Amino acid sequence: MAEAKTWTAALAVIGDEILSGRTQDKNVAQVAAWLNEQGIRLEEVRVVPDRIERIVEAVNALRAKHDYLFTTGGIGPTHDDITVDAIAAAFGVEVVIDPSARRILEDYYDGRPGGLTEARLRMARVPAGAELVENPSSGAPGIKMGNVYVLAGVPGIAASMLEALTGKLEGGRPMVSVTIGARAPESDVADLLRETEEAHPGVAIGSYPFFKDGRYGANFVIRSEDGELARLTSEELAVRLREAGHDPVEGGI
Amino acid sequence: MAEAKTWTAALAVIGDEILSGRTQDKNVAQVAAWLNEQGIRLEEVRVVPDRIERIVEAVNALRAKHDYLFTTGGIGPTHDDITVDAIAAAFGVEVVIDPSARRILEDYYDGRPGGLTEARLRMARVPAGAELVENPSSGAPGIKMGNVYVLAGVPGIAASMLEALTGKLEGGRPMVSVTIGARAPESDVADLLRETEEAHPGVAIGSYPFFKDGRYGANFVIRSEDGELARLTSEELAVRLREAGHDPVEGGI
Repeated sequence: MAEAKTWTAALAVIGDEILSGRTQDKNVAQVAAWLNEQGIRLEEVRVVPDRIERIVEAVNALRAKHDYLFTTGGIGPTHDDITVDAIAAAFGVEVVIDPSARRILEDYYDGRPGGLTEARLRMARVPAGAELVENPSSGAPGIKMGNVYVLAGVPGIAASMLEALTGKLEGGRPMVSVTIGARAPESDVADLLRETEEAHPGVAIGSYPFFKDGRYGANFVIRSEDGELARLTSEELAVRLREAGHDPVEGGI
Repeated sequence: MAEAKTWTAALAVIGDEILSGRTQDKNVAQVAAWLNEQGIRLEEVRVVPDRIERIVEAVNALRAKHDYLFTTGGIGPTHDDITVDAIAAAFGVEVVIDPSARRILEDYYDGRPGGLTEARLRMARVPAGAELVENPSSGAPGIKMGNVYVLAGVPGIAASMLEALTGKLEGGRPMVSVTIGARAPESDVADLLRETEEAHPGVAIGSYPFFKDGRYGANFVIRSEDGELARLTSEELAVRLREAGHDPVEGGI
């Protein structure tokens, strides 16, 4: 039986505000979760500063290595929004005003104070040859250039662009994950975790420790593209945890 | 006058749990903020999966490009904790049991149920030639190997390791940032932002839009290594915003 292709993606988060610690990124988690639903594995994330050459370097490295590359950030109307220029440079094409994007912005700003100013028209700039990604929340569209999807940085807007892309990308089977928690230091259960994983090829078990309410504990995440196998493995892990004197908590702690 | 050296760092976040969207990363923001206090600029972040060859690739790319590389995650007692093996592979050295780390763990687990088990002893494994980084919260130390600092993934433990490293790394001047907010769509103020930035070499102004309480707004972050220059620029920006009819909000919205 031929093994099914695993579709992979990378994400480039563009923004000085993430690298300065000023802003807590929320796009990695939401892009990751959405990709998984599409049957696409997020394999790598890079956070890069608002500098053209650094964005170009990341975009060209990542788009070559993965089926898809997503970017977030830097597509607004201000001088620090340089993602479009960087994507164009990465592909070696010009930046042009997209007529459809211009119409979308004309409609969006029609009747709003100021109308379609020069600054706002910046948001119709795309690398030559790009397609648009619908932005149901705030007009200014995202961009698809080759296998690169350019999304907004504001998490709510990025989410709505992802929503608009749902079901439109080719992918494989979503990864199924089942979580079990235990009020045990993970060092107490390290052996049984390893043994359970080794007994089930095609399953990966991650162990994520925490310290909560004055006690150590850990959540164990059983992941597989085979949902039935993930569930069977989690049941076996629960039995082993109970035998070792640790009450398993379904769904995690 | 010779220009002062800018010290830079990268961060490799190691963990399938971040790439699957299961866990919201908190280490990027806290490492970034801490580095800034040390006068070191976080220039790049990569999030990579729990796979040796992928960690090695990221570690070798990033430690060569920056003064410092930090890693978070994968240094616990379980089978999915492979960061030490990856760092050793990246440096081309063996993994050894560090005698000091072993003593720390012996003391830590003395009297605790189970004592220093084989699994727990895994946390004394280091790449040959490494030094230890103190872990004030939970015994198992971090690791310094060349210019690479290997920290825990649990944010509270990573924070205490950073605390232990405070003031010990060579750095330059911290970046000073001043934030001003306005209840204006950023496209309304794009020109004055750009003009203000252009009028002040050595200053970068970032614009971060939001949608809150039914209204658009943006925060403008003025950054410079020259604190006085950052403050002067922010005062000028506030004046320009007021002249344009947008009340500036000191400290941001």
